[in-house]
Order: sequence, then structure tokens, then C-alpha cells
Amino acid sequence: MKVVLLVGGVGGAKLAYGLANTLPAEDLTVIVNTGDDFWLHGLRVCPDLDTVIYTLSGLVDPVNGWGVAGDTTHALDALQRYGEDTWFRLGDQDIATHLLRTRWLHGGHTLTHVTEQLTRNLGIPQRILPMTDAQVSTMVDTVEYGELAFQTYFVKHRWQPTLRGLRFEGIERSDLSEAVRTAVEQADVLLIGPSNPWLSIDPILSVDGMRDLIKSRRIPRVALSPIVGGMAIKGPAAKLMAELGIPVTAAAVAEHYGDLINGYVLDRVDAGLSVPVARVANFETVMKTNDDKVILAQTMLEWIRSWM
Amino acid sequence: MKVVLLVGGVGGAKLAYGLANTLPAEDLTVIVNTGDDFWLHGLRVCPDLDTVIYTLSGLVDPVNGWGVAGDTTHALDALQRYGEDTWFRLGDQDIATHLLRTRWLHGGHTLTHVTEQLTRNLGIPQRILPMTDAQVSTMVDTVEYGELAFQTYFVKHRWQPTLRGLRFEGIERSDLSEAVRTAVEQADVLLIGPSNPWLSIDPILSVDGMRDLIKSRRIPRVALSPIVGGMAIKGPAAKLMAELGIPVTAAAVAEHYGDLINGYVLDRVDAGLSVPVARVANFETVMKTNDDKVILAQTMLEWIRSWM
Repeated sequence: MKVVLLVGGVGGAKLAYGLANTLPAEDLTVIVNTGDDFWLHGLRVCPDLDTVIYTLSGLVDPVNGWGVAGDTTHALDALQRYGEDTWFRLGDQDIATHLLRTRWLHGGHTLTHVTEQLTRNLGIPQRILPMTDAQVSTMVDTVEYGELAFQTYFVKHRWQPTLRGLRFEGIERSDLSEAVRTAVEQADVLLIGPSNPWLSIDPILSVDGMRDLIKSRRIPRVALSPIVGGMAIKGPAAKLMAELGIPVTAAAVAEHYGDLINGYVLDRVDAGLSVPVARVANFETVMKTNDDKVILAQTMLEWIRSWM
Repeated sequence: MKVVLLVGGVGGAKLAYGLANTLPAEDLTVIVNTGDDFWLHGLRVCPDLDTVIYTLSGLVDPVNGWGVAGDTTHALDALQRYGEDTWFRLGDQDIATHLLRTRWLHGGHTLTHVTEQLTRNLGIPQRILPMTDAQVSTMVDTVEYGELAFQTYFVKHRWQPTLRGLRFEGIERSDLSEAVRTAVEQADVLLIGPSNPWLSIDPILSVDGMRDLIKSRRIPRVALSPIVGGMAIKGPAAKLMAELGIPVTAAAVAEHYGDLINGYVLDRVDAGLSVPVARVANFETVMKTNDDKVILAQTMLEWIRSWM
């Protein structure tokens, strides 16, 4: 059963971990948001791709859920000595990833190829694909500062500014890579991880042709809600929904996805919530331990198999 | 008294340190070999410039004489995990220097400008200039491996292959920067550090116009011998001379510089050696402590002043 999972960073990576420990490696493809990517100190940094790579390679910092476990910031401290901005905390081991990626990109390779090389060199057997090879930049319009590049909003200002709009710069020049197209075309199940629907999943869905391609597939297309009991498990999802005038509920996320999905998984605490999706299930969705991740992945796949 | 010093790496940086602690900051310009520079992991690495920068900023590792004191290699270890070659031991703090330099070079700045920025940001008041803004690569022809890029010869093979020739790739496209030309034109004294005459000083002298410019100056032009008692204080100078069929003596170094110099400083142990230079002095030239460096610099400058 070939599964394609769409994700952003930490939350989505948890489900990716669960699926990677449930499915045969060749059956899992993770398509990752690259709207958060940016240039920093001359390096191409792809936070969501790296979170998935570090998670599936076992290198990830288990406390943060991103970055490399035990990483240091000696290079960053030295950059600070030179007077550089260091609010984005690049680790030393992490820099190795960015150095390789940047060199290969400058050498003319696509981000898809570069990501394949990085995952292969770390011994990851699953496929991790950027949503597109085009450079797309999520821009956040805020009340306090006007428009901010994503990482300025997210990391420098710790997503505290009030969001009033979003756009994905460069999205009109983006297209689906052959690898992404083939993965979705051949998928038996399409999953949307519990990532931020507006900041992490919408960029993926906005790549030219992606929405239509997904809708064209007569397969289970199932989202896992990032909103549990009216709160976000992590990050700015709930705050952002409130700022955009959207009710902070798992139901509103389902409405946002609309006819893109035909199945929806909510947490047990949201049992009874009225959700406009054909098939709905309530499970324990908060993934704290690695066991939680595997159990949720198994439970979701069993449920989906039951109605295939 | 404006002093210009030509140097390579560690040995030359010692004299630079001595001079920096003897002269007013505005009176010292250090012109540095860039033939050792190379691209590594997508970074522009300039080992000799960095040795001088780290030395004059006080960051230098006092044991090695190069690199940053207490530096770690976590990024390098992570690159190794990706399967990359790591025989060139880039430190984490060192990488910050290379990241900045590479970004600024890619942004269209000259190496002269980039070096000025780096030194200014570290609070170094003296001028440190690359020999040229052109990319020049010292290539070493060896008996065992044929032609090797300099760092492959020097670091990977620890200068053990037998050298049979040298060339400076790109030297024909090099020219003097305005900053180097002005520094030499305005110098009251030109010094050649105790660096390797063939590997470190010859690239500088080979930049188009440099030899003629130096010879045109009617000022003291004084070299400090890197050969003491028939041995090199550090590095491959003695081994290289023997391989090229040159007697391993301080006199042979003076002959190599020929009419470029009109003054020569040898070690006390070489007193009595017949040297074809107008003015010759014997001093304690082996610099072990910082005091040694300052005393030698002072002694050399006093001697030079005595015949100006």
C-alpha cells in the first residue's frame, strides 16, 4: 500500500516517523513544504526538509523535534563575533547539511536530487521530496511589521506578530517535479500530516497542478487534525486561525481542506464534533513518545484499509 | 615608518605579530600569499590570510599557529557522516570566516574588500591584503602523484611527495590590486617574512607587476631567512630545496631572492655564511614565544633604521 504524506516540520515529521516504522520503506513518500526555505549566511536552509531528514535518520534532537541531537553552535557564535545576525540558531552539524545542499544546488542540481543524495548518504530508505524544485517563499503580512519573510516572523519574532495575510512568493513559477507527480499518481493513500494547514500544507497544495492532481485520485485522502480540543499541539496554528477570523476547531481545518480530503482523523477529545467530511475517525492523536507515533500511524492505516 | 611585510602562513604571521606589537597600527601592511586558497565544501578557504587574521586578532591557536584556539570540528564530523572527504580539518569557528568570505565573494566583492571587512569586524587595526584579487592556485608537480593542488600536497599528503616543479595557475591573469600597489609605493621598508620562498613568497612576487614594483622602490628591502643552520624551522622548505637540487642554506634563499632584496637577516647560527646581499645581519631569528617575535621585529627595524 503506497502512502504519500504531505507535511511541514515537527508535527508532520512525527507522523512520518510513525509511518516509516509501520510501512515497508519503499511504500512511503513524504512530500515536504519548502515555503519556509531561505538563504542564511550564504547557505540554503530548508527547515522542514531537514526536520524530516533528521527525524527519519534518527539524528533529530528528541526534545526540540528539529535540529541534530547534541548539536553545538560554535560557528554561529563565531558569526556573531563578526557582527552577523544569529537569531536563527544554526547548529554546527546542521551546517554540514546546508553546506552540502548549497554546493550541490550551486552545481546545478535540483532540490529533489540534492534531497535524495542527503537522505541516501544518511541511510534513509524512504523517499523525501521537496514540494517543488522552484524557490517559493512564504511571506507573512503582519499588523505590527507589515510583510515579513517567514523565518523572520516565525523564529526572529517567535510568531508573536498578528498575522493578517499570507502569500507564497514564487508559487506562480513553481511546478510539480516528476518525482512528486509520480508519487501522487501511484499513491494508494494520500495523507495530510498534522502540520499547520495555512503555513505548511497550503504552500504544498498551491504548487501549480497539485490540488487538481490530488483531487483526480480516487483514493483515500485523509488529513490528521493539528487542532485538538480547540488548541494547537505546537506552533501558531490556533493563534493564526483566530487572527484570520476562523473558529479554532478541528472542524474548521476540515472545512479549509474542503473536497481535497475524503477522510479526517480527529482527536478523541473532539468526538462528536460535526465535520463536513465523508469519513471521520477519532483516535488518540497527540504524539508524545515514539510509540505514540507508531500506534497512531498503524491505527490510521488500519482504519483507512477498512474502507478501501 | 611605513612597513610592508610579505608573508605566507604560520612563520610569516609570527613576524607580523612582532611588527604589529612594535609599529603604530597604521604603519603596518601585511601582503599575504593566496596561492594556497581553494574551494572546499563550497567555501572559499584562504589558509594564509586566515592565519594572519587569527594571529593579529589574538584568536589563533597558540600551539598550531593556525586556526582558532579551542576550535571544534562538529560540522566536519557531520560532513564525514555524509561521506565527504575531511582531511582538511576545518574548525567550526573557522567555518564562520569561510561562510562570510564566500557569501561576500559571491556577492561580487573583491577578496581585498572581504578581507578588510573580516579584519575590521575582528577589530584588527593593521591592514591585511591578499596578494591579488585574482584566483591563483599553486600546483605542485610531484614524482609520486604527478601534479597536485597545493592543499592535496600539503595537507592530505603532509608534503611527503617528492616535489619536482611548481606553477601558479591563473597567475597570468592576476594583477596588483590598488591597495597592494599603493602600499608598496608608499612603503618606507619592505620586509619578506621567514615564509617558504618557493611556496609562499614566490606566488606573491609572481603577481604581474609585483617584482618590478618592488625593485623600483629605493628603500630597504629585507628578507628574513626561513632556513636556520641548514634546516627549515617549520614545513617543507628544506625538503623542497633538496628536491629541487638547491643547497639547503640561508645563502641559497638569498640567492633565490637575488636583486629583489638589499638586506638580509640570518640566524646567529649562520654567522659567517657568505651571502650575496649588500647588508646582512645575524640575530636570534627562531620565534618561539610572543616576546621572541616582538624582540626580533624591534631588532630588525632598529638595524634597518641604522642604514636608512
